[in-house]
Amino acid sequence: MKILVINPNISESVSTLIEAEARRSASPGTEIEVATAPFGVAYIETRFEALVGAYATASVAAERHGSYDGVVVAAFGDPGLQGIKELIDVPAVGLTESSLMTAATLGQRFSIIAISPRIKAWYRETVERSHLASRLASIRALEEPLLDIGSVQQDYAGRLKALCNQVVDDDGADVIIIAGAPLAGLAREIRNELPVPVVDGVSSAIAQLEGLLRLSPKKRRAAVSHGRQSS
Amino acid sequence: MKILVINPNISESVSTLIEAEARRSASPGTEIEVATAPFGVAYIETRFEALVGAYATASVAAERHGSYDGVVVAAFGDPGLQGIKELIDVPAVGLTESSLMTAATLGQRFSIIAISPRIKAWYRETVERSHLASRLASIRALEEPLLDIGSVQQDYAGRLKALCNQVVDDDGADVIIIAGAPLAGLAREIRNELPVPVVDGVSSAIAQLEGLLRLSPKKRRAAVSHGRQSS
Amino acid sequence: MKILVINPNISESVSTLIEAEARRSASPGTEIEVATAPFGVAYIETRFEALVGAYATASVAAERHGSYDGVVVAAFGDPGLQGIKELIDVPAVGLTESSLMTAATLGQRFSIIAISPRIKAWYRETVERSHLASRLASIRALEEPLLDIGSVQQDYAGRLKALCNQVVDDDGADVIIIAGAPLAGLAREIRNELPVPVVDGVSSAIAQLEGLLRLSPKKRRAAVSHGRQSS
Amino acid sequence: MKILVINPNISESVSTLIEAEARRSASPGTEIEVATAPFGVAYIETRFEALVGAYATASVAAERHGSYDGVVVAAFGDPGLQGIKELIDVPAVGLTESSLMTAATLGQRFSIIAISPRIKAWYRETVERSHLASRLASIRALEEPLLDIGSVQQDYAGRLKALCNQVVDDDGADVIIIAGAPLAGLAREIRNELPVPVVDGVSSAIAQLEGLLRLSPKKRRAAVSHGRQSS
Amino acid sequence: MKILVINPNISESVSTLIEAEARRSASPGTEIEVATAPFGVAYIETRFEALVGAYATASVAAERHGSYDGVVVAAFGDPGLQGIKELIDVPAVGLTESSLMTAATLGQRFSIIAISPRIKAWYRETVERSHLASRLASIRALEEPLLDIGSVQQDYAGRLKALCNQVVDDDGADVIIIAGAPLAGLAREIRNELPVPVVDGVSSAIAQLEGLLRLSPKKRRAAVSHGRQSS
Amino acid sequence: MKILVINPNISESVSTLIEAEARRSASPGTEIEVATAPFGVAYIETRFEALVGAYATASVAAERHGSYDGVVVAAFGDPGLQGIKELIDVPAVGLTESSLMTAATLGQRFSIIAISPRIKAWYRETVERSHLASRLASIRALEEPLLDIGSVQQDYAGRLKALCNQVVDDDGADVIIIAGAPLAGLAREIRNELPVPVVDGVSSAIAQLEGLLRLSPKKRRAAVSHGRQSS
Repeated sequence: MKILVINPNISESVSTLIEAEARRSASPGTEIEVATAPFGVAYIETRFEALVGAYATASVAAERHGSYDGVVVAAFGDPGLQGIKELIDVPAVGLTESSLMTAATLGQRFSIIAISPRIKAWYRETVERSHLASRLASIRALEEPLLDIGSVQQDYAGRLKALCNQVVDDDGADVIIIAGAPLAGLAREIRNELPVPVVDGVSSAIAQLEGLLRLSPKKRRAAVSHGRQSS
Repeated sequence: MKILVINPNISESVSTLIEAEARRSASPGTEIEVATAPFGVAYIETRFEALVGAYATASVAAERHGSYDGVVVAAFGDPGLQGIKELIDVPAVGLTESSLMTAATLGQRFSIIAISPRIKAWYRETVERSHLASRLASIRALEEPLLDIGSVQQDYAGRLKALCNQVVDDDGADVIIIAGAPLAGLAREIRNELPVPVVDGVSSAIAQLEGLLRLSPKKRRAAVSHGRQSS
Repeated sequence: MKILVINPNISESVSTLIEAEARRSASPGTEIEVATAPFGVAYIETRFEALVGAYATASVAAERHGSYDGVVVAAFGDPGLQGIKELIDVPAVGLTESSLMTAATLGQRFSIIAISPRIKAWYRETVERSHLASRLASIRALEEPLLDIGSVQQDYAGRLKALCNQVVDDDGADVIIIAGAPLAGLAREIRNELPVPVVDGVSSAIAQLEGLLRLSPKKRRAAVSHGRQSS
Repeated sequence: MKILVINPNISESVSTLIEAEARRSASPGTEIEVATAPFGVAYIETRFEALVGAYATASVAAERHGSYDGVVVAAFGDPGLQGIKELIDVPAVGLTESSLMTAATLGQRFSIIAISPRIKAWYRETVERSHLASRLASIRALEEPLLDIGSVQQDYAGRLKALCNQVVDDDGADVIIIAGAPLAGLAREIRNELPVPVVDGVSSAIAQLEGLLRLSPKKRRAAVSHGRQSS
Repeated sequence: MKILVINPNISESVSTLIEAEARRSASPGTEIEVATAPFGVAYIETRFEALVGAYATASVAAERHGSYDGVVVAAFGDPGLQGIKELIDVPAVGLTESSLMTAATLGQRFSIIAISPRIKAWYRETVERSHLASRLASIRALEEPLLDIGSVQQDYAGRLKALCNQVVDDDGADVIIIAGAPLAGLAREIRNELPVPVVDGVSSAIAQLEGLLRLSPKKRRAAVSHGRQSS
Repeated sequence: MKILVINPNISESVSTLIEAEARRSASPGTEIEVATAPFGVAYIETRFEALVGAYATASVAAERHGSYDGVVVAAFGDPGLQGIKELIDVPAVGLTESSLMTAATLGQRFSIIAISPRIKAWYRETVERSHLASRLASIRALEEPLLDIGSVQQDYAGRLKALCNQVVDDDGADVIIIAGAPLAGLAREIRNELPVPVVDGVSSAIAQLEGLLRLSPKKRRAAVSHGRQSS
């Protein structure tokens, strides 16, 4: 099966991180193709940036339609995911939705670790959209301005682990979601040093999409709607 | 003051309905300018169509930035509204948000009258986004395929009024929201024949935007974010 | 149009503050008349005091019935508002309801700044009544016993501004509601020094009532009920 | 111990029904005194009527203060209960609160049987105030205009029992609350003919108040507030 | 009337505390019999331990069926309560359910004082099951490892009282629930030193069960189901 | 990897259905072992029966501990799942939790098709435990008494498909969950005849467990608790 992973951000360095984790997570025989948004921002942090990323991501999904068996929207916040599910006739998943579902299976209350305070509002609303906000213990983020979006994991390794311990000890989380494509793969690195399960968005999305493709449930009805799409 | 009313749909006939009701509702001295989305669908009914409309609407708001004192997103579901609020440094309102706030002031439980069953899911989620879903008595819609989006009010006048009475008698609504730009102005026509207040999106949006402009609260912080917008 | 603004508290000094802000906020041609509750407490802080204020306010609204086009219940917590809406056949708004609706249009999560800790429970329940509690970031209040209910703004200017910054930085509010008639007008003073929009109850109520009167939706059904009122 | 049962309605015939059921429910040694509101309506059905009843009930509780060990607010909807709890330094309970707590102990989802459709909104809001709305299966009411508030039980016995069966079979209720003082005692009559537990407001209130008096927990803090009550 | 109080834990020392408080709370003429779980853990703190306690408790209730008029499940978290209600044809109550209902009658927001941090998740879920989580101000617990489950009250008296004051001052609780059988009776000791009502699980359960037995509502329908129980 | 699938019911005929669907769903290389509860009921429909099934299921999981890489609790309602997750140090999933997570990825509002009306309450509470009740469109069930738990699919094929269409057309579901082990595999049969995706519990559980095992997140902290388990 072939999975198209779309990075709604324009940063190639983040696409590289996403691709690495996606390949590490994929089952043998799963082909991974990564695409980067042709326009938008380096890293989506606000509702407006998500609006732009949604359109860019849907455009990529539409252009390559027919060339893949499933799509991963590879930015936390899942820009455009709900619309893309209607647009295409194969399964689509997002980093947030997959992380939440995985976390909800591993524990009862989860916290989200993010890389910037500005992003918290947008993340909270994404959780609310899934109706799981009452299981959200907290969202904690790096306070520092980032040096380089491509090397966040290296630059703030200690601080990120400290935040993980904080959400368990102070906020009562029994699962941790490491949010955002720039942190793709970090969960794999640090999970053995943490007292509760740690969820990574990219690997959760790949695992769930593979599961959906194996279950191959019927396409959702609303999909027909984009037939009325004009220009 | 000058208000830019953006129709996220590409249908000029609907823009005409919107403009007429906007002018009827505006205070003396308020200038109304109506713009129609340059691309998208004739009438947004799904999440994907809303995603496209959101981008089209934000584009218009960005292009004309500086030429208006406030913006109305003139489609029920408010495509792009949250992002546009961050994008521009003047107030922006939407038909749904304004209708809900007006309804919430007039009563405790409201119902929404829509023109198509396909649109219900998208409307429900818009109400959930405002956290007022627990005050939503029901959403009822015309079942018939529409003859002409520009003449829905004339074509289905009787059926629409019947739906209004149904939500009061069967669903316990104490306020009715007539949803969707194609029905702009209908509330004005039928409100004296109905037992509870009837809310119109366009006139609510104009009234609330004028109110906000008079109060002129400070711009919201997140606005600075679009400064990081790239291409 | 003529608006009757009723202060559910017996403090004339607060009525003066309310009247000043109401006049500043009213459109040209809007006549403002302010009435003070004939009995009750100096400043409502508890459910029992609100019960008394509700009856006093409804009495004033009933006695002057016919002499106004709309009513503002001018105490945070809106004592008696829901009942008064049924009692009279013209629109009625309250400081809390109007503040919440304005805040909900300006942002996603709001905090309330109050003048006394004792009042927090009553304020929280008022927000719950509107079903918007899940958008309430926090309620913060002055801890000090007040010197004079009529000069709170002057006496605690610095502390109040500090609380405003706290709810933004610590609680994640993207809108601030300055609560309580004794603070009427303060938002106007300090909004340019704060990073997010600041909402004032009195001016929000005037703006929304003027909007409702322009929209003139039909009276709500339940109003007929007070016909069965006996003595 | 002496319990003051206050009927917030002015109808003596209903006070008689309340008194009979209160005496049937009281433990040996419990003295029951029933007072009727000095002003208000024959039967509270709206928010405005509840506002008047709240003030009348609180007045009675205040006037007789010192002469009782506990108070029952004997109308469904509990007009004034929250305020009265602050006003007096002994326990106060209401028909709705007591019915809901009893029902919540007997089952998971309850329905309310009421005597008039007009009353539904006010009842729903009372349930919301207790935060138990998500356990409310339905509210069903007699549709017929009442012949005599004092003889509703006799006049509509069959119809009321039919409603009880409907909420079990159609709405999934596993407990039934017979609401409103005019139906006091009916549960006792029909419970053996119904498949699930049936809760009566008056007897629940008496039982819970006796329990509270035996537990004699400390008075709630807010009570001190009415000390600031002026005239 | 005879009440069977079942301690779902295997600790006899806790059964002794439970029995003492149950006898102090019971009305004259009420016979109290206490049974200790034949297997399980010394003190239930997790979902798995609750699962075992639920089965052990239900077994005791089944074995002694016919010998009692009502059952109290005497561990906070009410292990097995919902199932036991279906199993037996007389009323059953639990410490948590009774505490919550009593607290909900005494105030609007309650906090829970627990004896171990590990127990918090299980307690929170028990509150969620009752749908009253939105009235939960906080859960605070002793941090120290316990010296002896039978002497927690003596060993940590000061710390427990400090926690009680904290939930009032910092968390806004207007009622305190002292949770867990090992603290049975503590409320009685300290309530006069605290500013808000303090609720004890055992005494609340006895009072409510006596009330239910006096009201004797009909058995709940689902009870018949255990007839299909096999081995 | 080896998966232990535990049927919390004692019916071997249902175990056979579960095993067949589990094998159809498993990836190559996944070994499936099915165990049947040693005691309990033929088919869990109530909270009490779930309590017994939980203990029986946990016992099997404990006895075979070390012989499997993951566990599936193979009854809708997930009896004992939360406790088993704490008990064992490898992942555990349940039919309901897996169905809900899969459904939440495929659509926004789901309905549940059940085989008996008696089971509805227990199913609703299981959905509430996951906090997804606000996305539950409806639960519809066969009304007829079942002929044979092992042949429900054959005996009621037409009726079950009719219920599926009803939840889409009347209740607004955009995903259907076919609930209960006796219906294992039915989704596979009928999904091409239905307008929206259809989710099967057993196959969802296998797919999600395989995904979790591939992600191998760390064991949850609470697991240590069962170390204190005594007898």
